[in-house]
Amino acid sequence: MIPRYSRPEMVSVWSQETKFRIWFEIEAHACDALAEIGVIPKEAAKTIWEKGGAAQFDVDKIDEIERVTKHDVIAFLTHLAEFVGPDSRFIHQGMTSSDVLDTCFNVQLVRATDILLADMDALLEALKRRAFEHKDTVTIGRSHGIHAEPTTFGVKLALAYAEFDRCRDRLRAAREEVATCAISGAVGTFANIDPRVEEHVAKALGLKPEPVSTQVIPRDRHAMYFATLGVIASSIERLATEIRHLQRTEVLEAEEYFSPGQKGSSAMPHKRNPVLTENLTGLARMVRSFAMPAMENVALWHERDISHSSVERYIGPDATVTLDFALARLTGVIDKLLVYPERMDRNLNQFKGLVHSQRVLLALTQAGVSREDAYRLVQRNAMKVWEHGADFLTELLGDAEVTAALSEAEIREKFDIGYHTKHVDTIFRRVFGKA
Amino acid sequence: MIPRYSRPEMVSVWSQETKFRIWFEIEAHACDALAEIGVIPKEAAKTIWEKGGAAQFDVDKIDEIERVTKHDVIAFLTHLAEFVGPDSRFIHQGMTSSDVLDTCFNVQLVRATDILLADMDALLEALKRRAFEHKDTVTIGRSHGIHAEPTTFGVKLALAYAEFDRCRDRLRAAREEVATCAISGAVGTFANIDPRVEEHVAKALGLKPEPVSTQVIPRDRHAMYFATLGVIASSIERLATEIRHLQRTEVLEAEEYFSPGQKGSSAMPHKRNPVLTENLTGLARMVRSFAMPAMENVALWHERDISHSSVERYIGPDATVTLDFALARLTGVIDKLLVYPERMDRNLNQFKGLVHSQRVLLALTQAGVSREDAYRLVQRNAMKVWEHGADFLTELLGDAEVTAALSEAEIREKFDIGYHTKHVDTIFRRVFGKA
Amino acid sequence: MIPRYSRPEMVSVWSQETKFRIWFEIEAHACDALAEIGVIPKEAAKTIWEKGGAAQFDVDKIDEIERVTKHDVIAFLTHLAEFVGPDSRFIHQGMTSSDVLDTCFNVQLVRATDILLADMDALLEALKRRAFEHKDTVTIGRSHGIHAEPTTFGVKLALAYAEFDRCRDRLRAAREEVATCAISGAVGTFANIDPRVEEHVAKALGLKPEPVSTQVIPRDRHAMYFATLGVIASSIERLATEIRHLQRTEVLEAEEYFSPGQKGSSAMPHKRNPVLTENLTGLARMVRSFAMPAMENVALWHERDISHSSVERYIGPDATVTLDFALARLTGVIDKLLVYPERMDRNLNQFKGLVHSQRVLLALTQAGVSREDAYRLVQRNAMKVWEHGADFLTELLGDAEVTAALSEAEIREKFDIGYHTKHVDTIFRRVFGKA
Amino acid sequence: MIPRYSRPEMVSVWSQETKFRIWFEIEAHACDALAEIGVIPKEAAKTIWEKGGAAQFDVDKIDEIERVTKHDVIAFLTHLAEFVGPDSRFIHQGMTSSDVLDTCFNVQLVRATDILLADMDALLEALKRRAFEHKDTVTIGRSHGIHAEPTTFGVKLALAYAEFDRCRDRLRAAREEVATCAISGAVGTFANIDPRVEEHVAKALGLKPEPVSTQVIPRDRHAMYFATLGVIASSIERLATEIRHLQRTEVLEAEEYFSPGQKGSSAMPHKRNPVLTENLTGLARMVRSFAMPAMENVALWHERDISHSSVERYIGPDATVTLDFALARLTGVIDKLLVYPERMDRNLNQFKGLVHSQRVLLALTQAGVSREDAYRLVQRNAMKVWEHGADFLTELLGDAEVTAALSEAEIREKFDIGYHTKHVDTIFRRVFGKA
Repeated sequence: MIPRYSRPEMVSVWSQETKFRIWFEIEAHACDALAEIGVIPKEAAKTIWEKGGAAQFDVDKIDEIERVTKHDVIAFLTHLAEFVGPDSRFIHQGMTSSDVLDTCFNVQLVRATDILLADMDALLEALKRRAFEHKDTVTIGRSHGIHAEPTTFGVKLALAYAEFDRCRDRLRAAREEVATCAISGAVGTFANIDPRVEEHVAKALGLKPEPVSTQVIPRDRHAMYFATLGVIASSIERLATEIRHLQRTEVLEAEEYFSPGQKGSSAMPHKRNPVLTENLTGLARMVRSFAMPAMENVALWHERDISHSSVERYIGPDATVTLDFALARLTGVIDKLLVYPERMDRNLNQFKGLVHSQRVLLALTQAGVSREDAYRLVQRNAMKVWEHGADFLTELLGDAEVTAALSEAEIREKFDIGYHTKHVDTIFRRVFGKA
Repeated sequence: MIPRYSRPEMVSVWSQETKFRIWFEIEAHACDALAEIGVIPKEAAKTIWEKGGAAQFDVDKIDEIERVTKHDVIAFLTHLAEFVGPDSRFIHQGMTSSDVLDTCFNVQLVRATDILLADMDALLEALKRRAFEHKDTVTIGRSHGIHAEPTTFGVKLALAYAEFDRCRDRLRAAREEVATCAISGAVGTFANIDPRVEEHVAKALGLKPEPVSTQVIPRDRHAMYFATLGVIASSIERLATEIRHLQRTEVLEAEEYFSPGQKGSSAMPHKRNPVLTENLTGLARMVRSFAMPAMENVALWHERDISHSSVERYIGPDATVTLDFALARLTGVIDKLLVYPERMDRNLNQFKGLVHSQRVLLALTQAGVSREDAYRLVQRNAMKVWEHGADFLTELLGDAEVTAALSEAEIREKFDIGYHTKHVDTIFRRVFGKA
Repeated sequence: MIPRYSRPEMVSVWSQETKFRIWFEIEAHACDALAEIGVIPKEAAKTIWEKGGAAQFDVDKIDEIERVTKHDVIAFLTHLAEFVGPDSRFIHQGMTSSDVLDTCFNVQLVRATDILLADMDALLEALKRRAFEHKDTVTIGRSHGIHAEPTTFGVKLALAYAEFDRCRDRLRAAREEVATCAISGAVGTFANIDPRVEEHVAKALGLKPEPVSTQVIPRDRHAMYFATLGVIASSIERLATEIRHLQRTEVLEAEEYFSPGQKGSSAMPHKRNPVLTENLTGLARMVRSFAMPAMENVALWHERDISHSSVERYIGPDATVTLDFALARLTGVIDKLLVYPERMDRNLNQFKGLVHSQRVLLALTQAGVSREDAYRLVQRNAMKVWEHGADFLTELLGDAEVTAALSEAEIREKFDIGYHTKHVDTIFRRVFGKA
Repeated sequence: MIPRYSRPEMVSVWSQETKFRIWFEIEAHACDALAEIGVIPKEAAKTIWEKGGAAQFDVDKIDEIERVTKHDVIAFLTHLAEFVGPDSRFIHQGMTSSDVLDTCFNVQLVRATDILLADMDALLEALKRRAFEHKDTVTIGRSHGIHAEPTTFGVKLALAYAEFDRCRDRLRAAREEVATCAISGAVGTFANIDPRVEEHVAKALGLKPEPVSTQVIPRDRHAMYFATLGVIASSIERLATEIRHLQRTEVLEAEEYFSPGQKGSSAMPHKRNPVLTENLTGLARMVRSFAMPAMENVALWHERDISHSSVERYIGPDATVTLDFALARLTGVIDKLLVYPERMDRNLNQFKGLVHSQRVLLALTQAGVSREDAYRLVQRNAMKVWEHGADFLTELLGDAEVTAALSEAEIREKFDIGYHTKHVDTIFRRVFGKA
């Protein structure tokens, strides 16, 4: 967890305090169920809730006990016993550490995902607002970094909206994957604990019982979870890269907001750099990389080994904290993005008329020229524009083979920008349900 | 694509012949729609279907043309024109190469996924059959590779069933992700092609229209697809690792089927090695690794660059062909797995009675001993079994502190295997809906 | 192995024919040593070389035998015996399959690396030639995609040269890593084979004996090998990305060579796309991804398991064939790169004089202005250029706070391009040993 | 950085305090050189060393300034100026932030690597000691987890020694990769700073000047660095996996030291789990995963973008701190490993005599039996041992086809363990230079 890439709400999900509080709740809910089915006294369950609920757990003390026992759950239970008193012997009856650890981890992941879902909503809101704002802002579309044909800046943002809308769905599915609870004992057989305890705790925590666990909740769930976060990070990288391209000096169609007092370079006072989106690119690399150890965590030995644990101590917090930060940063970038329609217009017309080459090509084929010939005719005139700065329309009108197939009026008609934007409303309706 | 890890049906999805056939169908379906809305003559669309449908495309010839044009779709269209004749000029009207390439790639992925889904069904069937066969075959559960408490071999297989059942759901979701079609033109604006063409082609091919595309179908979809395959591969690795462990000489509770004539080693004629599951472990590494370049493919520049293409030429076939092979191989392993219940029983009793340590611990706490004292009492007797081969029951009965809390009958009662299997039916009902 | 990304020489390293030929040589060299130390008759060794050396191994037949034995080395030995006759019983004495397989794999990797080293030399040669050609071609240096200060195109290429020169060193080190031979028997103890056999075979094949092997040559060597290839691929990606940027429409300072007859787009005849460097970007992703399974291959169980084998059947050929192709493609791109110095000059001057901002900043501090004030002064004038297209020099001369510290002559003197290129010779001497 | 997987010395390399101290030293050394060549007054350089050297930098204050300037180096320089006074305007003359940042990062990596090298020495020492201790401790070698032929536990450890010895060499090479310094200005042209400054600073810090830098030190160096750490982590995983296998209940040939007071399980007091080596397995996954973003960092845009920076804020500390911890933990495990020779002996003889199958096979071929027949004869007797617990020697002596080729004495002679260990001294001499 890197402080500069962390936001407090998400950080708090992963604090020691939060963790021990969740551990306590799992144990206490389990006691309720154990009391209900008569394994422990109801009075004990009540005492545990009261005394444990009021306790301020001392993280340092627990750590100290762990240094002797080399076992974190035992250390916590020992500490908890100090608050609860003699009834503490009814806690953790028939449970195994992983019942607590794994259920807690899933509670944390679910809480983290709820924050991420809210982040996503905010990002989608910003994208939608700016998309409608620039629905008709014409700009050149580019393939291979080369001018292709016109589109609108709104369509670019609509595309991002649709992509993150899919990411929201994926995030929801990922949340579903890890929203399970296991209180199934040492090897998952419920030998020492009735399955009804698991059902009760699951319900109390808003989770579903894991249909069959071993000592641990199966890690294919978590692999899917972190892989999903990696995909979302990759979408962040895509949009960040788009903005970085738009801001580069020669393009300059959009810019990250540059705050008063900000300095772009210690050496070059003229600089305004897309540092936020570059930063997002790096953060995306990190979140993506966590998918790999998460997948390697799946193949635990037999009913469990503990190799997954250290991995999760890194990637549980790091992946969610970083993604939370990245989504919020991206939302800010989109929200305040400086957009330069004039510059878009100037870039679009850099090679006069060249972007209409396909329309001319199609018109020629419609007029009976073979596809191969049409391509050759258009390409030879296009290359003059490209290489010598000629005007595409002028060149076409001066090419006898072209004018043999198309009249001047027909050719001129192909140079209309509106032609390219006529379906923008269709696209918006598909993405936003309205145009 | 490694021949020894390939099965013909999946390989054929990725053949050049299949690809060109799909390209043709996309173009021909598009012509139908173009004819319907009056852009090209209906007769032309009919001719295209007839002549193109009857054509035997010559892969070598297309390659030859590509060597000149350096463009594969143009090469194909040139070849197609030879069959179709003059009406060929109506083909590909207003479309861009990616309309064909991306829609085709998705058709191939969907077909591949349908094969994978069938593979998954077969695997699930095998797991279910063997799970019920061994529902009551008691075996030791292990955490950290160390004996923990008894479970049944059927529960192990039920766990695998539940895991692959989740994988089936994920695979279905992944199929959904990539089952889209884009016929949206050079930068996705439908400038030269009516959106109705896309709708028609999508429907004809069993796909959904991509709500908003650029020149390409957004690659977050494919990242999600290959990440999902990586997760499934990781589950294969888990089950393969379980079997490898069970087959190791000192354990030998199960073995891969060893066919007549098979040789385990060129040097050591006594060897019977778990080579199939070791092989699956390696294959899983490969399929998993493909998730990474798939995620890096998302951040294409602007409306597209072509960096994703080479990656997909590798991982499209390699991931699906390898996973298909791996699922089938795993199904065979499960189907014919030699299971040795006697050996399971012998291993379970290797440390006489030690697996009942938790029950004794719980009984002591129930009898009023503090958790810490109970743990200490049980641990000191357990260590004698572990270190000197003592009998756990005898040691307990000879420990005055233990017998002060529990009677001999109470202690003996804790050494019952049935205690551990009493909830197996519950687990089976959760997983299979019946027990 | 994707045919379109493969070159014949490297492909042949990995052919079945090559593999069986190397297997034979390993066995025959071993026979020489066995004969020398009296384990088998010298006559037998001679016969084996003669009959085996003349044999045309039939790949299909060997495959057929393997389908029964499920063991490739046994299948080969059975086939070889058909040629050699009764003396074939002296082949493979005391050896284990991995002695042959692993030594062969390393021979193939060494041969592959020799090709890669030659590729690297060709790339370095091209970079050097173009670097000197454009040593003095002034161009804008960019950080964050934003104009920074001038450099020369030659310096850019010198940087690439230095990077690939490091890559050559790394490749040599990687070759060293895998240039070992193991003929050490079933678990590496030489129980059935004298260590002198290993020494002889190693020397005959240009390898070093593996100091201690198990059944296999330790896979940390191969992990290092493939990780190195991944790093080299990343350097290819860097240079490819640079060129893609330079070719984008708004920059257009350099272009991949566009051959006669080439078509950039099926739809837009005006397009000239950096498809080769985009392709290299994708290939780099693949080669990089292979590092991961190679690292996972290290942790084999005990003296070996065979999980690494399937991984290596993919990445052995795929990594080296792809990298060979990529290096050759990159060499071609550099060799024929179209460079546009005029456009470089035009871009450099897009914001008149702004690139000199640092010099003015430094002059102000030298003149006694505090760093903070100097930064503020320069930034406020720079922003006018950036935002309103003003001329930087004019703005500075009109700023009283600036002229209070620096005379007009002093300010004008800061606007000299030569100032930025005065150490280019130093850099070239560092990189190439001459300027 | 996870506190429980961190050691203080390595953590301090990455503290804010250390970083700012190194920044100061880079600036101050640069001032020395600038004074020497007459750019700034010598007195100023002296003052800067004196006042800056005595200063206690306030991390919080620097952070506060950065929140305004959004630039960390400027924030530091502003803070430094408070201590140095007016002469502070001579600091950072002609330098760019990256000169400081990148050189500092490399200083930190070099210091981190020196710690890792010391860790490695300690690990090698422990491996060597235990290897000699168990040079003659016979144990079964296993391939595929299946008994193969005898080896010694010392040979296993010698193998690990040789592997980590290679890792030490790789670590040294990795240190060499990143031990460079760049003080080359905004785009690496030395426009505003004489190359002699770089040479001076490099020498003062024990680094080499980077032959050609852009704004940044090329990231292929760091990619190679982190890839190397990933390979080393994979070797840690290998040895950890070996120990985990040896400790599993059915094998139990070695055990991690179990300290007094330690608890293996909250539920099962009998457990002694290989938790340290399982933990190392997880840590290895993490360190390995960092290689991927490090490689993605190479392809920065033009003369630099800042996407690498966030990645390095994670992996710089995380990779080195985790690897330091892992190496130390592994050293402790090896140092205190409980080894059970009696159990090794018992396991070795589990299938009586079966491990001698190859010797019998070879004797049969030497006696004139064809390889195929010999294999068949040995395999059929071996399978009886495997499947029915027969005694291999007895079976062979009762097989007429076997005794037709070999006398009883000849057969009995093959059942000698000493045969397998006769070359252990050779191996030790190869690895340790002595036996």
